[in-house]
Amino acid sequence: MTDTSINAASVSQLFQLLRDGVPRTRAELAKSTGLARSTIALRVDELMRMGLITPVADAVSTGGRPPSQFALNPAAKVVIAADIGASHATVAITDLAGTVLAQHSEDLDVALGPVPVLSWLVEGATALLERVGRNTANVAAIGIGVPGPVEHSTGQPVNPPIMPGWDRFDIPGWFHQHLEVPVLVDNDVNTMALGERAVGWPGIEHLMFVKIATGIGAGVISGGLLQRGAQGVAGDIGHVQVARGANVPCKCGNRGCLEALASGPAIARTLREQGVEAHTGTDVVDLVKRGNIEAIQAVRQAGRDIGEVLTTCVSLVNPSVIAIGGSMARVGEHLIAGVREVVYTRSTPLATEHLSIVQSVTAERAGVLGASMLAVEHALSPEALTVGFVTR
Amino acid sequence: MTDTSINAASVSQLFQLLRDGVPRTRAELAKSTGLARSTIALRVDELMRMGLITPVADAVSTGGRPPSQFALNPAAKVVIAADIGASHATVAITDLAGTVLAQHSEDLDVALGPVPVLSWLVEGATALLERVGRNTANVAAIGIGVPGPVEHSTGQPVNPPIMPGWDRFDIPGWFHQHLEVPVLVDNDVNTMALGERAVGWPGIEHLMFVKIATGIGAGVISGGLLQRGAQGVAGDIGHVQVARGANVPCKCGNRGCLEALASGPAIARTLREQGVEAHTGTDVVDLVKRGNIEAIQAVRQAGRDIGEVLTTCVSLVNPSVIAIGGSMARVGEHLIAGVREVVYTRSTPLATEHLSIVQSVTAERAGVLGASMLAVEHALSPEALTVGFVTR
Repeated sequence: MTDTSINAASVSQLFQLLRDGVPRTRAELAKSTGLARSTIALRVDELMRMGLITPVADAVSTGGRPPSQFALNPAAKVVIAADIGASHATVAITDLAGTVLAQHSEDLDVALGPVPVLSWLVEGATALLERVGRNTANVAAIGIGVPGPVEHSTGQPVNPPIMPGWDRFDIPGWFHQHLEVPVLVDNDVNTMALGERAVGWPGIEHLMFVKIATGIGAGVISGGLLQRGAQGVAGDIGHVQVARGANVPCKCGNRGCLEALASGPAIARTLREQGVEAHTGTDVVDLVKRGNIEAIQAVRQAGRDIGEVLTTCVSLVNPSVIAIGGSMARVGEHLIAGVREVVYTRSTPLATEHLSIVQSVTAERAGVLGASMLAVEHALSPEALTVGFVTR
Repeated sequence: MTDTSINAASVSQLFQLLRDGVPRTRAELAKSTGLARSTIALRVDELMRMGLITPVADAVSTGGRPPSQFALNPAAKVVIAADIGASHATVAITDLAGTVLAQHSEDLDVALGPVPVLSWLVEGATALLERVGRNTANVAAIGIGVPGPVEHSTGQPVNPPIMPGWDRFDIPGWFHQHLEVPVLVDNDVNTMALGERAVGWPGIEHLMFVKIATGIGAGVISGGLLQRGAQGVAGDIGHVQVARGANVPCKCGNRGCLEALASGPAIARTLREQGVEAHTGTDVVDLVKRGNIEAIQAVRQAGRDIGEVLTTCVSLVNPSVIAIGGSMARVGEHLIAGVREVVYTRSTPLATEHLSIVQSVTAERAGVLGASMLAVEHALSPEALTVGFVTR
């Protein structure tokens, strides 16, 4: 038992080093870990036998010698990643490096309830697996983002306002009737923050992803870790009051909420009040792209309102990157210009000196990439792997 | 080398278990770690030889048998903990459980600059060590809170507005001329958050400590970890704009900052404008304690202003506890009532359902307790101990 645990721990330790995909020699691995070269040789063989790492050819050909560098084998397993939005859903198969192998998107109303939506997800994932020549035995984990608060430890939505029928639904339990793999569930803005950081800002430890669409919310990464808060509702900035909106009712029952002023539908309403034909956020985006001056002004003002709330966020968590995403981010720089105008005027110089406020790099891919991250991170974690080593 | 590393790692692993002070038997330790009982016996002997753990007598006397339970020996070493405020400083000696063994406080102007202030600290600490019968060889680490932003990795203040002469001063380097132990430096509100959590709210993972005094700032613990942000200025909420203050100039150059409306001096100024004699925060506290109605109203309004900013903080980080501290917290419930009034009205029900907004449990002890935590956490960390094991 003792030997097995120690072996498992050192195999896992070695693998955590190799996870970044950078090829390393046995000598480099020995140096980084402090383990003896004989131990390294044994562990490398074990990881290769498991298929988790793969030999990488040297840059310079070395003739007939055995390959001397090793790295993560991203093809060892796949994960199922899903981004469930309010009215639209995406499911994808990715490898262990987060590369999307196949993907399918469809209009789907989350209010249909958990069983229809998750059944759609399973069917879609099964078809995609077949398309890429894999099967459920190759699936290491499932990652899912949903548009509401989630108790991350159990994978259950908690009082989600726009997800009728999902409250306390046991998403992992439901999947386990079909597939016995770990299921990680999180709020969609949290998965977007993970996706944006992994693809757009590797190594950045303090990042906020702000989604501006039908609703407004943020995913907060602080100290390198996604912050979910005590009830899993961290980042729920859509119902913070902004000064301009004292008389605007919000569907939450309060007045002057950011979402009631700066979301896609809110901007459309403002434009209608000015006699401009706009019913949805998409209409607003189209108007801005066609150069409509009222739409550009309304979007800029929405940016200022968002900036008002973000000013406090910048002071509180001191991020180095704020990435603006969600469907309204497609309006481009007009929205971000409004955000920057207020944040750089109002926040302290120390907090904004190295702060970038930018359009999301991953845009609409953020959610599914983050769901893949969530699944891969779990599947390759020391805990998951150690269990795998000991029990296999 | 391999064997030494693995031994050091398992000794450290065992010690991390015993750090909580709960006595455990060898059998319990074997079960928790998965290590063989023979290995446990060797490691326990090693930790006892180092003085880090100590036998604990059984509740029921077992006659002549050797003691069978072990726990952290808090007396193994001491740490020096210091809370440097704007105009007042405290230095203390604590044991490894954070218990204060001796303490000294004095009015001291931080603007005197680093050398006079740190010399005062060394002299004070030396005298306290002597008083408790210890010497510098017993000191495991030094923890210091200072009233400004700190780059935690180097222990250097960075552009601290009220600490002239301290910008980029190498505090650890200066101490190392006198004493070769680790020196941990942090912003004073951060240390207060650590102290409050350790003593008042053990096990709470999401806590904000809000200091209301001459300035206003917050220390944020999320996911169990103190969050310092990208530039070490996380929690700097004193210069967030509040709605009521559009025309009130702040010494930062902006207008309407929270600090310009709700700090001790700001409340005193409001009272003077109403013809009430008040020059400092202490005057305000005295007036409230004597039941002065204008002072009570002004303090309540300051609470509302602070609540306005905290509403956004609650939405963003979703804490389960907000502890109100700093010298103005001595006014008692009037201030907190104002905070609660706004936060519970304005924040989302999900974020406030399990939120406690309370007076700091540790009050003026928070800073020095937190500085002790900072030092002890470092001194007993697996990294610090492993280095100790290998090099000793």
